Amino acid sequence: METIDKLNNYKEKINTKIKDFFDSEIEISKKKDGKITELIEHIKEFNLRGGKRIRAVLALVSYELFDGKDFNSILDIAVSVELMQSFFLIHDDIIDNDSFRRGGPTFHKIYENSNENLGQRESEGIAIVAGDILESLSKKMILQSCFNEQIKIKILEKFNEIIENTCYGEFLDILSSKQNPNEDDIIKIHEFKTAKYTIEGPLHLGAIAAGADENEMRILSDYAIPLGIAFQIKDDVLGFFGDEEKLGKSAGSDVKEGKKTLLIIKAIENSSQDDKEFINKCLGNKNVTKRDISKLREIVKKSGSLDYSEKLAEKLVSEAKKALEKSNIKKEGKIFLIDIADFMIKRDC
Amino acid sequence: METIDKLNNYKEKINTKIKDFFDSEIEISKKKDGKITELIEHIKEFNLRGGKRIRAVLALVSYELFDGKDFNSILDIAVSVELMQSFFLIHDDIIDNDSFRRGGPTFHKIYENSNENLGQRESEGIAIVAGDILESLSKKMILQSCFNEQIKIKILEKFNEIIENTCYGEFLDILSSKQNPNEDDIIKIHEFKTAKYTIEGPLHLGAIAAGADENEMRILSDYAIPLGIAFQIKDDVLGFFGDEEKLGKSAGSDVKEGKKTLLIIKAIENSSQDDKEFINKCLGNKNVTKRDISKLREIVKKSGSLDYSEKLAEKLVSEAKKALEKSNIKKEGKIFLIDIADFMIKRDC
Repeated sequence: METIDKLNNYKEKINTKIKDFFDSEIEISKKKDGKITELIEHIKEFNLRGGKRIRAVLALVSYELFDGKDFNSILDIAVSVELMQSFFLIHDDIIDNDSFRRGGPTFHKIYENSNENLGQRESEGIAIVAGDILESLSKKMILQSCFNEQIKIKILEKFNEIIENTCYGEFLDILSSKQNPNEDDIIKIHEFKTAKYTIEGPLHLGAIAAGADENEMRILSDYAIPLGIAFQIKDDVLGFFGDEEKLGKSAGSDVKEGKKTLLIIKAIENSSQDDKEFINKCLGNKNVTKRDISKLREIVKKSGSLDYSEKLAEKLVSEAKKALEKSNIKKEGKIFLIDIADFMIKRDC
Repeated sequence: METIDKLNNYKEKINTKIKDFFDSEIEISKKKDGKITELIEHIKEFNLRGGKRIRAVLALVSYELFDGKDFNSILDIAVSVELMQSFFLIHDDIIDNDSFRRGGPTFHKIYENSNENLGQRESEGIAIVAGDILESLSKKMILQSCFNEQIKIKILEKFNEIIENTCYGEFLDILSSKQNPNEDDIIKIHEFKTAKYTIEGPLHLGAIAAGADENEMRILSDYAIPLGIAFQIKDDVLGFFGDEEKLGKSAGSDVKEGKKTLLIIKAIENSSQDDKEFINKCLGNKNVTKRDISKLREIVKKSGSLDYSEKLAEKLVSEAKKALEKSNIKKEGKIFLIDIADFMIKRDC
């Protein structure tokens, strides 16, 4: 499939650029302190561990869609988005108290497990600081790019806005974990924390760099926001019903974390008193068994909640595709973005 | 004293600008979510609680020193430095597990004490995110200023570099708390975490905005780095020997935190075995008594360590002043910066 080849080709270029950037930062750090060099080596390793690079790819695709010609400069911007993503992951993993990420230890665990004699508190402190450094480096990447100053300023404004909105989403998410969010609350979190961040933001960055106009930016938003919300709904369904091996994480982990997904709140809304109580008993319970998860899955299906989530995700994806189809965006780009939308919703991991 | 009047006049303008900026952000947030508005109100309150505004003032002074004419725009940059300072304080207070800041609760404590039903973990999570938001807002302030794009890019590069270096200082500081730093290690932390951040960075920002040349930037560094290190040494001396009431914090708090200041490590180096053991017993001990602190003060004096710190600070300040005096920087600016240096080292709180 052409789209997959294109994705893999981009991914390779992105990874090479990340590596080169950190190698240069490592050289600079040697004049500062050996421990700082080690820190940047850890940050480099964390950034190169993998990830789908979907955000960077979207920035590249969008730039080409609007006839941008300076591939090397947009690659800098695309990579800056991946650095931002790692910055968020480092901070999120502290907040969620996670130990594993991208097949390795979370950033605070790297230092907790090192021979630096650090406790949990100090290791988390270092991870907070490492996230802050990475956030700065992501902007350095933009500042170093060869775009002219006018474009750089516009990119930085958008980049800043993305960070701000993603933080608001994370903030609402933390609050909701201790409250009783309704569907609107959850959709708003998906909009801020996923749709604006993962889809709209990168597309807008590419478009701004290529000089797209306001109308084109709006079309991208009309595509990105519903697709992003659908993407997150699908993610939550996969987290609950997906194949553990393919996902690389335990299917019950969202339940153990007490995550109030659309799937869960709709099931609570439409279940018998007994089933409701069972769901609430399992949520946030670290000792939930495989059998409990199986029973939960049955309850979620029976309540119609799985069906509801899947239908809503499909409806949103079709909305996203329609927004593209009726626009005057050029054909090749349309096909690619529609493929991406299908890929996001049909994936099984 | 003319310098003090000038400082107070600047301070008022800075506080008004901070207030106006957040009022506008609060309006914008109302379209997003009521909880986001509340969050920004808390961030505003935290920023307006006070602080000496020394960093903002230095940026303003430096701009005027190099004949910058657009006071309103440099005020935006000066305020962005104060927002950055609050961002660092919010993250530092999580790392240090502090409860009070600027006469009120630390940011994580605001949420822990609210009626949002949040535990320590979630409250710290919100404070991490609030710091990240503030970091973004500090850059928004720069992006919104009326300087032209070329200058804005240069300011953002410097601003980014300041954040990065301050983070390295904080990182080295966290590591050193669990190790045995020597004098060079401590001076390096002071250089990154205080001198570059509190003195050199703001001066450079003002100078860049006014179009200063490389030679002028170097003169500012030659003044700022020794002064900044002296400032931190003085701060540690005050934290240990200063008047509790004037300082607004317990004189033993650094000892209880286990902070390895120059004062402490020099005392350890030059004390009898018994005294060494006593110091090590007190460091990081939350139950240290007033009597212990009195005895510690005697040991530090007897060892010659207080004398050493004071002499070193004086030597560094005189180095800083000399760098200015022999430069061709204009007289009025010289007098003001020399007054600032004296003020920093002679202060008793």
